[in-house]
This record gives sequence, C-alpha cells and structure tokens, in this order.
Amino acid sequence: MQSSPRVTCMTDPLRPGSDPLPSEAGAVDLLGILAYGALVAFDRLVDDARRAPSWAERVHVVRLAAHQVAHFEAVETRLAALGVDVLAAAAPFQRAFDAFYTHTAPKDWLEGLVWTYVGNGFAADFYREIAAFVDPETRAVVLAVLAEGVHNDFIVETVRAGITADPKVAGRLALWGRRLVGEALSQAQRVAADRDALTALLTGATEDAGMDLAAMSRLFSTLIEKHTVRMRTLGLQA
Amino acid sequence: MQSSPRVTCMTDPLRPGSDPLPSEAGAVDLLGILAYGALVAFDRLVDDARRAPSWAERVHVVRLAAHQVAHFEAVETRLAALGVDVLAAAAPFQRAFDAFYTHTAPKDWLEGLVWTYVGNGFAADFYREIAAFVDPETRAVVLAVLAEGVHNDFIVETVRAGITADPKVAGRLALWGRRLVGEALSQAQRVAADRDALTALLTGATEDAGMDLAAMSRLFSTLIEKHTVRMRTLGLQA
Repeated sequence: MQSSPRVTCMTDPLRPGSDPLPSEAGAVDLLGILAYGALVAFDRLVDDARRAPSWAERVHVVRLAAHQVAHFEAVETRLAALGVDVLAAAAPFQRAFDAFYTHTAPKDWLEGLVWTYVGNGFAADFYREIAAFVDPETRAVVLAVLAEGVHNDFIVETVRAGITADPKVAGRLALWGRRLVGEALSQAQRVAADRDALTALLTGATEDAGMDLAAMSRLFSTLIEKHTVRMRTLGLQA
Repeated sequence: MQSSPRVTCMTDPLRPGSDPLPSEAGAVDLLGILAYGALVAFDRLVDDARRAPSWAERVHVVRLAAHQVAHFEAVETRLAALGVDVLAAAAPFQRAFDAFYTHTAPKDWLEGLVWTYVGNGFAADFYREIAAFVDPETRAVVLAVLAEGVHNDFIVETVRAGITADPKVAGRLALWGRRLVGEALSQAQRVAADRDALTALLTGATEDAGMDLAAMSRLFSTLIEKHTVRMRTLGLQA
C-alpha cells in the first residue's frame, strides 16, 4: 500500500509535529479525486461537443464542460484552505482515471452522452459515500459540486430521443453502459486498494488503515444499484 | 451584399411595424461575432491544453477555455434581452471564423499560445472599435467581456520564457504572428464587406449602408498598429 507523503503538510497546527489526522488525509484524497475527475470529464465533454449533430447541442455540451472547470476550481479553493496544492492532491489518481478514459472512448454522440451520464453519476455516488466521513467544510464543497448534476436533463432527453428515433441503438447503448460500470468498478477498486486514507474513512477504521473487504463490497453493491436506476432512466437495461 | 432577415425581430416596440434601427442591427452583429468568436477561441484553447508540457500549464489553459464559455453566456444574455437567439446572431459569421480556424492550425504549444494572444487581441481591438457605436447596454457587455483579457500574463510569460530557452523559435513565431494577422485581416475584411449593419456603424453612415473604404482602411491601420505592439510584448518582431 502506498503512503501519502504529500499530506505531511496537513498536520494539525494546534498539535505541532503530530501526524496528519487520518480524516484530513481522506478529505485531501477525496478532493484530489474530484479535481482530477473534473479534468477528465472536461476532456470527454469537449470531444462530445465536437461530435454534436447541431450547434445548439454543441453549445449545450460546451457549457457542461465549463461547469467541470468550475467544479475543479471549487475543489482547488477548499484544498488551498487545507494547505494542499490541487495538482499534488490529484496526482495519485491520474493513473486510474487515465486508464478509465482510454479504455472507454465513445464511438459516437450518444455513447459520449451515456459516458458522461453513467460515469459522472457513478463517480458522484462514490464521492457522496466518502463525503459522509470528512470534515463539514469539505463535505459542503463536495455536495455543492455534486448538486450541479441537475444539467443531466439534457442528456436524458437526448438519449431517450435517440432510442425512439432508432430503437436498435438501445441494445448497443445498454452494452456500453455495462462496460462503463465494469471499468469504473475496476478502477475504483484499484484506487481503494491503493489509498489507505480513503479506505480508512469508508471502513471507519481510522487507526488501522487496512482495507475492510466487507465494507468495500457493501459500497460497491450500493453503487451498482444506483447505476441500475440510472440506466433505467435513460431507457436502457443495466 | 447580404441582407439581415433575422434582425426583423429587432423592430422598436414603440414604433410597431417599423424597420429595425440600423444601430440595433449593428449591435446584434457585434454580439453575434463575439459569441461565435468565443466558441472558436474555446476550441483552440482546448487543443492547446492537450499540448501543454505540464499539468499546471494544462489547467491554466483549461481555465482560459472556461472563460470563453462565460463570455459566450454574457453575450447570449444581452442578445436575449434584445429578443435575438445567440446562435441565429452568430450564424452569419461562422464561415469567416471557421476559415480562420482551419487556415491557422498551430503546430505546437507556443504557436497555440501566440494564436490565442494575437488572435484574441486582434479581435478585441476590432470589437472595441465597433462597440463605440452601439447602445450603452451592449457596449457595457462587450467591454466587460473584453476586460477579461488580464489573463494574458500567463501567455506572455510562457512565450518569452520559450524564446529565452531556445532563441531560434523567435523567428518562426514572428512569421507565425504575421500569418495570423494576415488571415485575421482577410477574414475581417470579408465580414465587413458582407455585413451592411456593421460597416454602417463604423462609417457612421447609418442611412446609407454602403461600405466606406477610407473608414475601413483607417480601422485596419489602427488594428495593425496595435498588433505590432502586441508582438513586441511577446518579444517578437511584427
């Protein structure tokens, strides 16, 4: 398991020389994931925008991309308050996100929209679970960023309209959704296994940073259930 | 010369059935140019971000891209107040901007930054000249959007550092800057020749919408002078 040298700057100023509080290290990890996730989502949305069939749809997706930058900046501000550089906090998660991004390149406009809806939805559920265990200020920032998901209406309407126009895309998109969640679970598992501070938050074992497989398994069941609901919203079988 | 059917919705509500005021049609054209220009600048910055040598630089450019979306939205709000859809206002300028974008694809990171600095700077000067003649509300929106140019420090510092690190790039970038302004002038001239409402604003001939070549030529001299100053700021010969 990987140690977290970058969180040494997180020592409690009231306890000079002390180790960082485990919940602080977990908060920094959560914010780092959110920051890098926003950059990856931005990149995907930018590609989607170029595939848009009309200018109106293109502009809509460009706006969604700009929201991701706003999320990044909100997270950056919170990390700065914690004395941590946003790119340093994000760096440990680059490999997992880059692997997810590379392994899940959409082939067309609708696959791109499903990527954003399913991927961001899955990630948001994951963040929400973790946010329950971090300090109130960090939690407020995370929940504010996640609340931004209201822009999903456009994606849901466009995907449903696409299926109505050509019902046979539903099968392909359902398969695509399953592939996305499979990749997401595999990367989330890798991150969880790598990052003691995160798993400690989830398992509540803040003294022993070892991974609790039962807790992990419960979390992943929850994530899959919520994914199933999301697929149904799109008019797809999970 | 092209007529402006889309500005028929701009008739003065106090003068039902009247023709649109020429200055209103000019304002809509100016806002339409700004809107489409912001989308094109966004696209170029997104490409630049992917060429960035470090994550810190990449994030910096991603932020600049998000600002372009904010500009688009500010312009969209003003157009909505005038009763005009932003994409309808932008459409007449798509061809000129797309030609500029296609003819001026940067080959590397520094060429990309020079594109943004020189291209946005040139466009901003052009908009400022026109803004002097539109209604105060539109002028305020345009000037607020243009005032955002303060983020140029990053570009100037990075280009100057690039030249210091490898002085022979200065010759190539100077050539590149000249090509950019040549293309920009040629597209600006095409737009000016096409859009009566715009040229009417510039020449003050709001009754006779014919193009005043002397006024155009004065405008272009001003634009070139300011371009020369900008190139010098980058450490390049214009």
